[in-house]
Amino acid sequence: MVITSSSNKIVKDILDIKRKGKKSSSQLLFFEGQRLVEDVLACGAEIETLIIRESSSEKYSHICTNNKVIFSDKLFEHISGTVNSQGIALLAKRPILPIGGGKLFLALDRVQDPGNLGTIIRTALACDVDGIFLLKGTVDLYNEKALRSTMGAIYKIPIYIDVEMDHLVNFIKEQGITPIKASIKGEQLYDKIPKGKYMVFVGNEGNGLSQEVEELEGLDVRIPLYGDIESLNVAVATGIILYGIKGNE
Amino acid sequence: MVITSSSNKIVKDILDIKRKGKKSSSQLLFFEGQRLVEDVLACGAEIETLIIRESSSEKYSHICTNNKVIFSDKLFEHISGTVNSQGIALLAKRPILPIGGGKLFLALDRVQDPGNLGTIIRTALACDVDGIFLLKGTVDLYNEKALRSTMGAIYKIPIYIDVEMDHLVNFIKEQGITPIKASIKGEQLYDKIPKGKYMVFVGNEGNGLSQEVEELEGLDVRIPLYGDIESLNVAVATGIILYGIKGNE
Repeated sequence: MVITSSSNKIVKDILDIKRKGKKSSSQLLFFEGQRLVEDVLACGAEIETLIIRESSSEKYSHICTNNKVIFSDKLFEHISGTVNSQGIALLAKRPILPIGGGKLFLALDRVQDPGNLGTIIRTALACDVDGIFLLKGTVDLYNEKALRSTMGAIYKIPIYIDVEMDHLVNFIKEQGITPIKASIKGEQLYDKIPKGKYMVFVGNEGNGLSQEVEELEGLDVRIPLYGDIESLNVAVATGIILYGIKGNE
Repeated sequence: MVITSSSNKIVKDILDIKRKGKKSSSQLLFFEGQRLVEDVLACGAEIETLIIRESSSEKYSHICTNNKVIFSDKLFEHISGTVNSQGIALLAKRPILPIGGGKLFLALDRVQDPGNLGTIIRTALACDVDGIFLLKGTVDLYNEKALRSTMGAIYKIPIYIDVEMDHLVNFIKEQGITPIKASIKGEQLYDKIPKGKYMVFVGNEGNGLSQEVEELEGLDVRIPLYGDIESLNVAVATGIILYGIKGNE
């Protein structure tokens, strides 16, 4: 049966998720496009509904699931918001991966760009980080663009959203973790960090780390800037520091 | 005098640049927004025309230049294409910085995302790279989004666009440069690269390096992936390799 009505419950859910992100009452995530849907499925996401455009149903007949629905072309365009869509989308459950112990964590302090957030999460996964904390004020992880740029990595690494600084400070103390703060004036070079149990803090694209984070006792780590530039992109800086730590483990 | 007509030469130039990028006959670049305009000016760009929105003219009265024009609010919205613009934009000459000698170069092999391109250029500037070559098929550097993400860095580092592989190979040979290719199976670790004269090649987001580049004799450099992920973002990988080289210089 082909769904054509925009008053269908699935359609309403999708539009609500796209508009509200983490504040959507549906508790589902929406992914669109062939590559992204395949990545998310390969990462072990739990499918709620796979949505196929009527004219593309043959193309995607190899993707089997009990929860497949067909949307008319017009309705698919309505949920996609783009005319050149690939005719495939997915509603999946939000990931639930608890953060346990570990020796390498990451905390994002009001990073604003969804593309940077996604890239940082993928980099953290590459470095086998044990958990990521998104402090309050960080861009919504469930924003469509952020989700797209994670390429499914959110299903493979524990991430806590809307984290209060107080809670994070408690976690650091309980676990005996040393905060690492990226800093232009830091004394510790990124590739000379001694072995340890760390949480790397990275800050806002324009303003860096907040005062509260700056005041944490820990290591101020510096990435040298050899050329005439004030700062690196936050995702690049995160990668360099995380690999600096891994290289000395 | 306030310009109101969309048939004004400056308006026509801007729309042509926004549409055609490097193919625009105007040979100028267009930057919009306060932070970006300030960055570009600070990087030493040669101003062709500074464009201020009528209702913002007082706000920007501190920016002095002979080539300032005022656009009516309606006309500014027309060139901006956004309703929430900050009312300031710049037409600047394209940078002309010749690549001379040096010991560290970067070549981009069909990188497609304009945000990645801009981030890579900033990272190269931070590592004091002597020149960047954009091989044919790489995203247009003069695309508005790419320019925005360079934050003015194009005025501080020599960049050649639309480079033919043949010319690049000649340059490498003449200068005695060793190509470095990022590779998952590479034997050389990114942080153990010996001193040398290098050109780092980074490839397309989905498909990596082209066959032609793979066949160049040089070092296959690997960034270890500790977690369950197939690849790093190309800008992050570029940063890690460039800093790997700088760290051993």
